[in-house]
Amino acid sequence: VVKTNGERLKASLLSMAELGATEAGGVTRLGLTDTDRAARNRFSDWATAAGLKVRVDDLGIVYARLEGTEPTADPILIGSHLDSVPFGGKFDGTLGVMVGLEVARILAESGVCLRRPIEVVDFTSEEAGRFEPAMMASGVLAGRFTPEYVYSRADRDGCTYGAELERIGYKGSPANRVGKIHAYIEVHIEQGPALEAEGLPLGVGEGILGMIWKNVTVTGQPQHAGPSPMRSRRDAMVAAARMISGIRDLALDYPDPVTTTVGRVLPLPGVINQIPGQVIMSVDVRHWSTAGLAELSERAEALMRRIAAEEKVDAQIEQIWRIDPTVFDPRLVDLVESETRRLGYPYCRLTSGAGHDAKYINEIAPTVMLFVRTVGGKSHCETEAVHWDDVVAAADVLLSVVHTLAQEAPLR
Amino acid sequence: VVKTNGERLKASLLSMAELGATEAGGVTRLGLTDTDRAARNRFSDWATAAGLKVRVDDLGIVYARLEGTEPTADPILIGSHLDSVPFGGKFDGTLGVMVGLEVARILAESGVCLRRPIEVVDFTSEEAGRFEPAMMASGVLAGRFTPEYVYSRADRDGCTYGAELERIGYKGSPANRVGKIHAYIEVHIEQGPALEAEGLPLGVGEGILGMIWKNVTVTGQPQHAGPSPMRSRRDAMVAAARMISGIRDLALDYPDPVTTTVGRVLPLPGVINQIPGQVIMSVDVRHWSTAGLAELSERAEALMRRIAAEEKVDAQIEQIWRIDPTVFDPRLVDLVESETRRLGYPYCRLTSGAGHDAKYINEIAPTVMLFVRTVGGKSHCETEAVHWDDVVAAADVLLSVVHTLAQEAPLR
Repeated sequence: VVKTNGERLKASLLSMAELGATEAGGVTRLGLTDTDRAARNRFSDWATAAGLKVRVDDLGIVYARLEGTEPTADPILIGSHLDSVPFGGKFDGTLGVMVGLEVARILAESGVCLRRPIEVVDFTSEEAGRFEPAMMASGVLAGRFTPEYVYSRADRDGCTYGAELERIGYKGSPANRVGKIHAYIEVHIEQGPALEAEGLPLGVGEGILGMIWKNVTVTGQPQHAGPSPMRSRRDAMVAAARMISGIRDLALDYPDPVTTTVGRVLPLPGVINQIPGQVIMSVDVRHWSTAGLAELSERAEALMRRIAAEEKVDAQIEQIWRIDPTVFDPRLVDLVESETRRLGYPYCRLTSGAGHDAKYINEIAPTVMLFVRTVGGKSHCETEAVHWDDVVAAADVLLSVVHTLAQEAPLR
Repeated sequence: VVKTNGERLKASLLSMAELGATEAGGVTRLGLTDTDRAARNRFSDWATAAGLKVRVDDLGIVYARLEGTEPTADPILIGSHLDSVPFGGKFDGTLGVMVGLEVARILAESGVCLRRPIEVVDFTSEEAGRFEPAMMASGVLAGRFTPEYVYSRADRDGCTYGAELERIGYKGSPANRVGKIHAYIEVHIEQGPALEAEGLPLGVGEGILGMIWKNVTVTGQPQHAGPSPMRSRRDAMVAAARMISGIRDLALDYPDPVTTTVGRVLPLPGVINQIPGQVIMSVDVRHWSTAGLAELSERAEALMRRIAAEEKVDAQIEQIWRIDPTVFDPRLVDLVESETRRLGYPYCRLTSGAGHDAKYINEIAPTVMLFVRTVGGKSHCETEAVHWDDVVAAADVLLSVVHTLAQEAPLR
């Protein structure tokens, strides 16, 4: 039986963490920078050394392929992304690429004959830390964006995605894009506290929450704090405050992982002795079902309208973004679950609150995710951490799942 | 019977409003600027032309004196301040100086013989728009500040109060300070909506609310909005929101004019998909009695501590400012009330929520204020407005009160 080389996997992750390392132990490795190129080069060198064949497509996606005994069969795709947010952590997407590479290395070394090719993938610029929106490369594969749109996206300095892709030498051929995918399995840190709270190393991903973002402008009457009687005030901040706590309470009516969050709150003029005449704030609503998302969003709007009327203020509510919930392939979810159980790793099923390339790939191929317990639930920060045993557990499960899938006839 | 010259009073106010006029119909006339000098000069010229004797003390306070038949008797002080906040209104303090000047002009013209001298006063830099804290000149008269402290205060460009006072030629002699004051009566716009709401032109000031300012730092746990279950969050913004609405509700337990206000709220990091880990906010508490102020302040703190515990966040509460309530001289309050009633002007008694030079002068002399209805309750803004009839009413009452007081033997 082939087994994960935990030491090599850890060494690979720590070696990658050198590229863009921050003083506080994190990583800044924005997409299509020199640092990103260095990470791509290192990944490609390791893959080549392991006997994999590396190719790059027109979106800069790097594929490291372990050939199967039936080279024309649809491949098993495993991986994630090597880029990070500014002052992010050592793991996030890199974990998924390195776990994928480790699985391919083990399989290559073992000489096991698999019917299907295995491709370890590094999706370009998953994060929105430099180019927005996030996940554009996988989005093109799913037909959500055109390459022309993606190439034209510019960072804050005006550098475009297309020009930067050429500059770092990672603009490949459209012919190199992956075609029909037999299955995509993405390993990723959980980025939340649920697994840690339950004492579980792994989480079997069932899907990704749908999300609605709103921009809310509450307008009352700015006045001096002193001479304005309480009962005649139209205080935009008090109204916004009641909305914020009310929207939180709404989410408590639902089981996890449904969430509502108000992250941005800007009262104007924002001085100590003035009643705020206006508050601009954001509302983030997430739910695993399309109907649930619509219901929670509508309840939040109704609550805001009711409070606005009670506080005699105006509330302009604008929906600025919406993504539907993602439901992963049930057969793959069952397979990942059964292999996790068979290997004896404690786990639960969970729905991710964050976006991943798996979201877009799920639209064109059977997809599933496997989540790794995240210390303190902290991610996108320099103190992001995992337990090494959990990483090895994820690699073991992935290895086992890939081994099973690679022998299969086409699923679809 | 002598009567206010309403046309002249209106013309004086509109003439003053030319100095520092803003495009939107307001006034920017910060203390000790060239614009302030122009206003002082215009006031002095008008006073001199009316037969008053102008002098300036070491704080730049301008006194325009109408001599009495007993020149050694303590004077009646009337007036306010000519400076404004940035993009302030045409009235605010200027109204009190111009009404005072009108009263002195009328008395001078009428040839009425009064025992006591009348001094129309322009207190230097009442607003904190340029030099902080506010009301330093009257504060020196009350012994709250030393002249050295006041001279050393610098504006944002590093210009000091002392240097600017000399530069505009208004640094006079300490010997010119007013000595013992028989009574001080300050006319001012209400700056709130109470009189307008009641349909009353005038308000007889009973005092000024005491005030406590707090700085509150709420600290929870910053996390991603998506993968963080509602029940394990330590959301500083939700905690702050509950505090803000709770603190508002506390004030509703009290009759007007008790107030609480949260004007400044800063969530960190303040982005749409992050649970705020910290919120920094202000709390402004006002009450007319010392005991009431302490009680309301303590209730607000207890409420914040309780909510912090419930939301599993930390709340650091710091008291950054406190001023005791001011209670004006009861005999002067009664006198202003009886003269207002005798002249047939509808009025109510009220306690001001805003600070005024009358606050400090009240500590050294019998003091009272008379408030003028403010259109829409708006002040410290370019659309600040009054009804001309109300201004004439205030001048009539002041004239009558001054006439009575100027014949009196010393009150204290």
